[in-house]
Order: sequence, then structure tokens, then C-alpha cells
Amino acid sequence: MLKVNEYFEGNAKSISFQTATLPATVGVISPGEYEFGTTKKETMTVVSGALTVLLPGMDTWMTYAAGESFEIAGQASFKAKSDIDTAYLCTYE
Amino acid sequence: MLKVNEYFEGNAKSISFQTATLPATVGVISPGEYEFGTTKKETMTVVSGALTVLLPGMDTWMTYAAGESFEIAGQASFKAKSDIDTAYLCTYE
Repeated sequence: MLKVNEYFEGNAKSISFQTATLPATVGVISPGEYEFGTTKKETMTVVSGALTVLLPGMDTWMTYAAGESFEIAGQASFKAKSDIDTAYLCTYE
Repeated sequence: MLKVNEYFEGNAKSISFQTATLPATVGVISPGEYEFGTTKKETMTVVSGALTVLLPGMDTWMTYAAGESFEIAGQASFKAKSDIDTAYLCTYE
């Protein structure tokens, strides 16, 4: 059974699944600014929209558009903001 | 509020959102074979996994891997099957 996850009072939702090799989610982030925490290392790929992120240890916000990816270490937190609904694929290692 | 949709007794789930130009969903289809119906014209892009589809009026199944897209006319039905969890982006025109 596919599990649905909800964050930030429903402003971000995702569906958990299994790729051929890794656990993953696809999800949508509504416009706003959020702080996410990681457990495992995450590779996030923007599928639609654009996400502007402040990665751990960085002092510059970077914007990732559809088709672009970034990685976040495990046991870290990062900030992400978007002006439009943004869909993403996330794999966990 | 992001809306979650459920099909085929929970074997397919999606999240509705709005791209810059079109209504859209991201979703996951569990392994199996399903028949989907369309209302509007759909453009479906595989995001993870692979989907083998029998499009309306075709007699050959075609397989689409991650990054590949196909279109389905509105008011049509098509069959889709997958051996692994498959994530997709769908836009509606």
C-alpha cells in the first residue's frame, strides 16, 4: 500500500514508494518557505516548478528548476522556498 | 490545500497541483495492470520506474522509461502495466 505523508499543515505532501534500488518519494510543495530535516542522505530532483534552497553549511540560496537535482547529507536540515507549486522526486540512501 | 487522489483500491495514488500553466498530478502506480480513463488530454511523463501502455487505438504495447513522455486524448481509456513502483507527472489540457 502506497503511504501518503503530510508536512507543514498539508502544505507539502508526498507518496512513498520503492525504486528499483532505493526508497523514494514523489511530492508537491505549495508556495512558501519551509525547513526540512533529513534522516538519510537525500537526492532531490525537481520534476515541475522550481525550488530555491539553502543547503546545510551554505550561505547562498540556489534555485533548481525542473530536471535539476541536489543532494542533502543525512541528519541535516535545509531551507526551501518556492513561489509556485513544485513537484519533486526524492531518493534516500 | 494539496488534494490526494486514490485509485484501484490504493494501488495508485496521486497529488493534484497547479503548474505555471496547467493543472497536474504527480503520482505512483504500484506493480499491476490497470485501465485508466481520461477526461482532458493528458501528457504523462515517467519520473521513476517504467510504464508499459496500450494507448487508445493502438495494438502494440509501448514501454516508457524515466524521462519519457506520452500523450492520451481526452475522453479516452488506456491500459498501463508495470513490474515495479512507477512514479509519473501528468499534465491536463
